[in-house]
Amino acid sequence: MQRYFVDSTQIGPDWLTVRGDDVHHIKNVMRMRAGDRLLCCDSKGTDYLAELESVSEGEAQCRILETLPSRGEPRIRVDVAASLTKGDKWEWVLQKGTELGAASFLPFTSARTVVKLDGKKASKKKERWQRIAKEAAEQSQRGQIPRVETVMDWRSLLERFHAYDRVLFAYEKGGRPLGEVLQETAAGDAMLVVIGPEGGFTETEKNEAVAAGAVSIHLGPRILRAETAPLALLSCIHYSYGEMGGEPL
Amino acid sequence: MQRYFVDSTQIGPDWLTVRGDDVHHIKNVMRMRAGDRLLCCDSKGTDYLAELESVSEGEAQCRILETLPSRGEPRIRVDVAASLTKGDKWEWVLQKGTELGAASFLPFTSARTVVKLDGKKASKKKERWQRIAKEAAEQSQRGQIPRVETVMDWRSLLERFHAYDRVLFAYEKGGRPLGEVLQETAAGDAMLVVIGPEGGFTETEKNEAVAAGAVSIHLGPRILRAETAPLALLSCIHYSYGEMGGEPL
Repeated sequence: MQRYFVDSTQIGPDWLTVRGDDVHHIKNVMRMRAGDRLLCCDSKGTDYLAELESVSEGEAQCRILETLPSRGEPRIRVDVAASLTKGDKWEWVLQKGTELGAASFLPFTSARTVVKLDGKKASKKKERWQRIAKEAAEQSQRGQIPRVETVMDWRSLLERFHAYDRVLFAYEKGGRPLGEVLQETAAGDAMLVVIGPEGGFTETEKNEAVAAGAVSIHLGPRILRAETAPLALLSCIHYSYGEMGGEPL
Repeated sequence: MQRYFVDSTQIGPDWLTVRGDDVHHIKNVMRMRAGDRLLCCDSKGTDYLAELESVSEGEAQCRILETLPSRGEPRIRVDVAASLTKGDKWEWVLQKGTELGAASFLPFTSARTVVKLDGKKASKKKERWQRIAKEAAEQSQRGQIPRVETVMDWRSLLERFHAYDRVLFAYEKGGRPLGEVLQETAAGDAMLVVIGPEGGFTETEKNEAVAAGAVSIHLGPRILRAETAPLALLSCIHYSYGEMGGEPL
């Protein structure tokens, strides 16, 4: 069933109102009519099974039939800090990362990042990126839309490390095995995974990351591309906590 | 260091010869000169550190400096049967799947597969797909190039199941948790993972797969797209056998 995120202020005890782009989607893409059913999510852990009552250009009125807990939101928090990559690769990371349970995305630039964005372009891109995360969250049945942050530089990213219980720094030139580090990480710990650009991190950056509290890890003997590593990491971490049909550690 | 697969018949005790497209890559893309070093792999478990001696239009002569075991080849065998998907999605599965250790790819069509390929188009595509797997294997430092098979229909795929110790059938509508099934699978078992098209499998197909020996599995509460599921499965399976920097089961 089609699923939409709705701001909780638009949800009453018996009725809810869908506004914005989703109205166009309901009306013109899904071609729904009065009586059709849809699923709405308040981003706070509740889904609403609802019936479309009326739809105009600007809003869709729906009667709430049932409330259900959102099942798709992972019980663990893994944020993804990934260096900007070229073209559609970054957008793939956002889309696939959302499906694979990323809690939020922190795009950054470091010494070997090739992509540069100026202010105006960056804010336009950010809107697009947030929309990609929203659509992927709807499609994959997440309970929340991952937040896509503004592109930050390496220094600003380092300053964010202290807010996490565990920062995993993916370093091609070696580190501790991922599995070993996860064994020492509690399920409730807030985690950040940090993935570099195509050319990798410099040794200075690796030292700075470790000094700021990160643990350098490796992902096995095969070299993963910059856009593959975050998706593999999300899969393995969620799997190891029983979130991918795996058994919890 | 740049890495090329070389047929073992082109490797002598002290010298090896690179032929085909890779010569163009050595000469015009990498712009290597006599004395430059490269890594060659015989697809049989051995890498050769070599020094370029001379390069002509058709071949590159290299002196072997050292032989090393290929580190990048997984110790477990996981083949990927995935329904053909549209546009660049299938090519992503090939590229990323190779990085993530797939042993071979079995493209297939089932009831809800949208993409259709006729004979001539299919054989052209197959060449392109095999090239993508080769390049990804070189880049990710695999010890072998995964084989991309000819597109097969659903019946032909079912007939292949008996050749595996374990066939994991990813079914959106439910199955056993992946982790539970992997606990019962020995590390030496030959595995096949089967992933359906965007619209999923029909219930009939699911029943036929189970009757042919597959175990229906689920990958957690989030719905993964057709092109995301194989990559997540490869990550989780390799991780659970200690191949992604994880600890072996």
